[in-house]
Amino acid sequence: MSGSTIGTLFRVTTFGESHGPAIGCIVDGCPPGLALSEADIQPELDRRRPGTSRHVTQRKEEDKVEILSGVFDGRTTGTPIGLVIRNTDQRSKDYANLLDTFRPGHADYTYHHKYGLRDPRGGGRASARLTAPAVGAAAIARKWLQVRYGTTFAGHLSQIGEIAIPFEGFEHVPNNPFFAANASDIARIEVYVDELRRAGDSCGARIDVVARGVPVGLGEPLYDKLDADIAHAMMGINAVKGVEIGAGFACVAQRGTTHGDELTPEGFAGNNAGGVLGGISTGQDITVSIAIKPTSSIRSPRRSIDLEGRASTVETLGRHDPCVGIRATPIAEAMLALVLMDHALRHRAQCGDVRVAQAPIPASR
Amino acid sequence: MSGSTIGTLFRVTTFGESHGPAIGCIVDGCPPGLALSEADIQPELDRRRPGTSRHVTQRKEEDKVEILSGVFDGRTTGTPIGLVIRNTDQRSKDYANLLDTFRPGHADYTYHHKYGLRDPRGGGRASARLTAPAVGAAAIARKWLQVRYGTTFAGHLSQIGEIAIPFEGFEHVPNNPFFAANASDIARIEVYVDELRRAGDSCGARIDVVARGVPVGLGEPLYDKLDADIAHAMMGINAVKGVEIGAGFACVAQRGTTHGDELTPEGFAGNNAGGVLGGISTGQDITVSIAIKPTSSIRSPRRSIDLEGRASTVETLGRHDPCVGIRATPIAEAMLALVLMDHALRHRAQCGDVRVAQAPIPASR
Amino acid sequence: MSGSTIGTLFRVTTFGESHGPAIGCIVDGCPPGLALSEADIQPELDRRRPGTSRHVTQRKEEDKVEILSGVFDGRTTGTPIGLVIRNTDQRSKDYANLLDTFRPGHADYTYHHKYGLRDPRGGGRASARLTAPAVGAAAIARKWLQVRYGTTFAGHLSQIGEIAIPFEGFEHVPNNPFFAANASDIARIEVYVDELRRAGDSCGARIDVVARGVPVGLGEPLYDKLDADIAHAMMGINAVKGVEIGAGFACVAQRGTTHGDELTPEGFAGNNAGGVLGGISTGQDITVSIAIKPTSSIRSPRRSIDLEGRASTVETLGRHDPCVGIRATPIAEAMLALVLMDHALRHRAQCGDVRVAQAPIPASR
Amino acid sequence: MSGSTIGTLFRVTTFGESHGPAIGCIVDGCPPGLALSEADIQPELDRRRPGTSRHVTQRKEEDKVEILSGVFDGRTTGTPIGLVIRNTDQRSKDYANLLDTFRPGHADYTYHHKYGLRDPRGGGRASARLTAPAVGAAAIARKWLQVRYGTTFAGHLSQIGEIAIPFEGFEHVPNNPFFAANASDIARIEVYVDELRRAGDSCGARIDVVARGVPVGLGEPLYDKLDADIAHAMMGINAVKGVEIGAGFACVAQRGTTHGDELTPEGFAGNNAGGVLGGISTGQDITVSIAIKPTSSIRSPRRSIDLEGRASTVETLGRHDPCVGIRATPIAEAMLALVLMDHALRHRAQCGDVRVAQAPIPASR
Repeated sequence: MSGSTIGTLFRVTTFGESHGPAIGCIVDGCPPGLALSEADIQPELDRRRPGTSRHVTQRKEEDKVEILSGVFDGRTTGTPIGLVIRNTDQRSKDYANLLDTFRPGHADYTYHHKYGLRDPRGGGRASARLTAPAVGAAAIARKWLQVRYGTTFAGHLSQIGEIAIPFEGFEHVPNNPFFAANASDIARIEVYVDELRRAGDSCGARIDVVARGVPVGLGEPLYDKLDADIAHAMMGINAVKGVEIGAGFACVAQRGTTHGDELTPEGFAGNNAGGVLGGISTGQDITVSIAIKPTSSIRSPRRSIDLEGRASTVETLGRHDPCVGIRATPIAEAMLALVLMDHALRHRAQCGDVRVAQAPIPASR
Repeated sequence: MSGSTIGTLFRVTTFGESHGPAIGCIVDGCPPGLALSEADIQPELDRRRPGTSRHVTQRKEEDKVEILSGVFDGRTTGTPIGLVIRNTDQRSKDYANLLDTFRPGHADYTYHHKYGLRDPRGGGRASARLTAPAVGAAAIARKWLQVRYGTTFAGHLSQIGEIAIPFEGFEHVPNNPFFAANASDIARIEVYVDELRRAGDSCGARIDVVARGVPVGLGEPLYDKLDADIAHAMMGINAVKGVEIGAGFACVAQRGTTHGDELTPEGFAGNNAGGVLGGISTGQDITVSIAIKPTSSIRSPRRSIDLEGRASTVETLGRHDPCVGIRATPIAEAMLALVLMDHALRHRAQCGDVRVAQAPIPASR
Repeated sequence: MSGSTIGTLFRVTTFGESHGPAIGCIVDGCPPGLALSEADIQPELDRRRPGTSRHVTQRKEEDKVEILSGVFDGRTTGTPIGLVIRNTDQRSKDYANLLDTFRPGHADYTYHHKYGLRDPRGGGRASARLTAPAVGAAAIARKWLQVRYGTTFAGHLSQIGEIAIPFEGFEHVPNNPFFAANASDIARIEVYVDELRRAGDSCGARIDVVARGVPVGLGEPLYDKLDADIAHAMMGINAVKGVEIGAGFACVAQRGTTHGDELTPEGFAGNNAGGVLGGISTGQDITVSIAIKPTSSIRSPRRSIDLEGRASTVETLGRHDPCVGIRATPIAEAMLALVLMDHALRHRAQCGDVRVAQAPIPASR
Repeated sequence: MSGSTIGTLFRVTTFGESHGPAIGCIVDGCPPGLALSEADIQPELDRRRPGTSRHVTQRKEEDKVEILSGVFDGRTTGTPIGLVIRNTDQRSKDYANLLDTFRPGHADYTYHHKYGLRDPRGGGRASARLTAPAVGAAAIARKWLQVRYGTTFAGHLSQIGEIAIPFEGFEHVPNNPFFAANASDIARIEVYVDELRRAGDSCGARIDVVARGVPVGLGEPLYDKLDADIAHAMMGINAVKGVEIGAGFACVAQRGTTHGDELTPEGFAGNNAGGVLGGISTGQDITVSIAIKPTSSIRSPRRSIDLEGRASTVETLGRHDPCVGIRATPIAEAMLALVLMDHALRHRAQCGDVRVAQAPIPASR
């Protein structure tokens, strides 16, 4: 297996490279009867699409999705849903020189040694472009979860490079090119990113995502805990180097009397757990944070080696995001949706007959 | 599936609860011909065993492992290896009262709502005791990786509660009850933990683990990246709320010119990547950090609700670790070993014929 | 993976060899709340047990099952159920000579070349003894399917060697040592098997099994069709060389006007389909037949080679069944139950919300 | 999961329906470095293609395959290979009436009750057209197995309806429209099929396939035996109702002294085993037979029910194969190739270091 499938029951298998003819995926296991058309998927792809501001790669991709199967008369039939997105703007010549060397911080070196050969055009399979099929698949999951349980997803950029971005409200997210939940600091961020780009450098980012309206009981005790599968999905996004659930690393310095969220008839008294206890959802918001490393493809000259192992220098031309985190918010939301969808199906498979006398307590966010 | 299997080719499936007759696992897919006996496994279990100092739970468990299958004449046969550990010290009466309420921060509430019933004795399946079978299975993986590739594993407690523990050398790890790579601060830590225990409280911890001598090329581009599978395995350990690879969350504030580890004929110039690029091992050390939350079972009274949803108070008696992180180092090493073992087999399945002209560059740690 | 797991959601993973300390399995994914104790499992193991008549191996095994986990207060908790059966009668010396040669028709040769070494005691992993854990696991599946859907299973020996055994009624099955649904021909079969045993030879058998009260809709279109998974499970039983669903090979000479079972308001007009159309259950009886080859371990001298590739002769001493088919009926029922259980959970995962206006038509057997 | 993936390491996931925009698959896990282009795949698709003689459906499909990913500079890169085949001749109006009733012997009824709705156009997902992606994927497996091990595949129609077709030589297979390994009986078969078609009826078929040059050691002891996985793959082909390995059902009446293939320094003295012992390949030819039921879509009027459960009559217009077995030979070869490819990778994952002193004995066919 080369591992290109995610999910156990709601299974997404992707194919494609940055500069091949097309990218896409097969979504296997979608419940039948869901109203679905390209119009449900395209908006999520548009959120992730490159070329929408000067702060991201200038590659022009329409990212137009086509549903090839699994839908009849406007409803899912329960059979696999094939999604395809044609690549249209492939300036492969920009990458010709990359075959002789390895970008520091990039997958060039590991692909070379694993496979003995690699597709250098736009990063091949390692391109962040490959998040598009997952975003498309997740649009289906999001719709089903919304219809079935009222679950919704939101995310925002909470830090870019050295700049922490105060949370002012999710309503601001669509109004700036960074997915920042903030209106006051946008100008400052724009200056920061402009300077980075001019300097031929890049920076990291932190993204926070939340799922609301999650049913209690999703997940497994061991090993496919809900949070373990979330960590797998998030760390599977390009450039992610860290994942936190709830209090995350802050819990190291907490006491048990602080961290353990008390229960009251009115609901949980806190959410340090991030909505997951013992690998299973509590019904509270699921809160996840990820760390995204700086883009490795940068104009600044870096030391590297050539195919013969001799010292060389590499400068990456082509079109790149100065901070891949800028477009990563919808991707992180998507991965969270895929995991919850999968566990929603897993849960009812095993526990579909469980009836608990008392209702869950209200969720605290 | 209730998800109790980890790994694709080197598959470990566990069973058991804290206070049932036994815990154990089946290790399926071990290569044949490996010299193996209980003496290879028991030392790792002993490192994780409870009751070895006053700072951990006083439960007395010998944790004696028995190999039930898969070994003939001292060598693995390639068939499943059954491991069983009998539970011997089960004071279940301590837990009788727990069935009527839910410990804050514990899986009680989620198990109740997921399954409609639960085994309250010692936390049942949610007990940290369930890490023992994985540690046993990982001892097999560690031996095979050591013999085949020279891969070794080490870990240490780098922070406990508010106390950051300076790294002074791995040689100190076996010489204190905390797995600290430190000799100077042990007395201070002991005082800290003694106070916590007396206060009926608990604290979190940070563990760092490293794998050395990892071959280049292990992992997959998507979604089963080496780091994604590591994140899954680590977040699957009880009480873990965060996972970092390499620079982890520190990469958010880094620049690309800093973060991207340059390559030179003498080796990598750094290891911000933590030994993984594009989901595939670089041949450098794999470095992982995890955040462990404070133990939820504490003596201090906490607000909770009863089975009828009415307000109640819970105080957890019984024997508990004031910081589950104290015994977590061998567990984190074990989970890392399981993931690397699995990917070593996956890699040679697909890429067993790959020959690369040039040798990998020397690893930088 | 060495493939020792069967099932996607109701997952059974086995371990053990014929003459090791124990055999057993882990059943992962059982729905919670099912009343369960060893008393539910032992009767099925007793049906399969050796040494119950002169026509089967004289090995004395009590096959006493112990539940190690997953049950609390007499009910399944939803966590993995560990089952273990200690081996008690291992006369391993009988097999010492087998390490130097290969029994014709036995797995000796293939294990040797696959693994480079093998456990020769009683056939090791290749022993039919390894069907016991699956029979134990299936007892759980049978109980759940019975309680939830009223599904029941029955099977019988329909041919042994050259003797076709007329079906006279399932009530006869427990009354003879062959699982024959027949009272008239038992004496004749006993003579036949006695002669075989005296001649140091063995023979094949045909087993028919049926599942009744199966809900409509279990299975998948591709590739995990219900019948494909049944074929996988049945061919996975030791010594099976053929599997048929419904009309089986007889359908080759049928016309479409004969084979296609017509539908009427009173039910299906036939069951050539064997209860499966397009990979999905029709609600009719699921009917399966399997062919079991003659036991390969026989006293008659056979030509073989030794470890150096030189011609040799092999005569198998030890205790063996002259026809492994004699004890195979409960095994075939068990494998069918495991597949149906798995697909019952899979079905409600994906299609748990499907409501069809009209009721299924009555099943025709 | 709706089960649309086959294989553990060489994984093929398909999508598509008979009359949707396209069908296709993703092949994940192909070893890197294999020379590959559409020219390697198209010939196998052409063998299976409809409309090539008057004896099969007259639907005109070019079945032109496009590789969308996983190949760079004419070689596989190790990343997923996306294959797509556009549907071009969809006369969906022919099927409009089918939504109100259920064809006897067809998946109409089971899809309706499983999913609550169905795509009736050309059988939707249940169409034999969905074998095309697997045939495409298998062309890749066949090439790799040929290059790596010299493995080859052949198959032929050995019976159609009542007519057993004597084996005269594989060289005849491409020279008649039936994949018969026979030159003498073709005219007789043509008359038979013409009469069936005119009568508005259909018939069953038997296909024999063989893999030659298979390495010894592929497969697993339990449950993913090589023959079990072959049975799964074969029973997963549309309309298959029976699978045999080697002697198959004939072994029921065999004695152990006949069935067990003796070993000699010159090779095996027979191949009743069909190349598999204990679930693992012997190095001999792997021989498989399958039974294919008569086409359920026939012109002859049949009794059925409508959506309200009332008696109705159904006559299937549209274009259909009078015997789906006529085009099934390349499909059966393909499924066998997929299973062997998967197990070749699985074997070297676990046993890549095994060295056996003596060479395997020569294979007997």
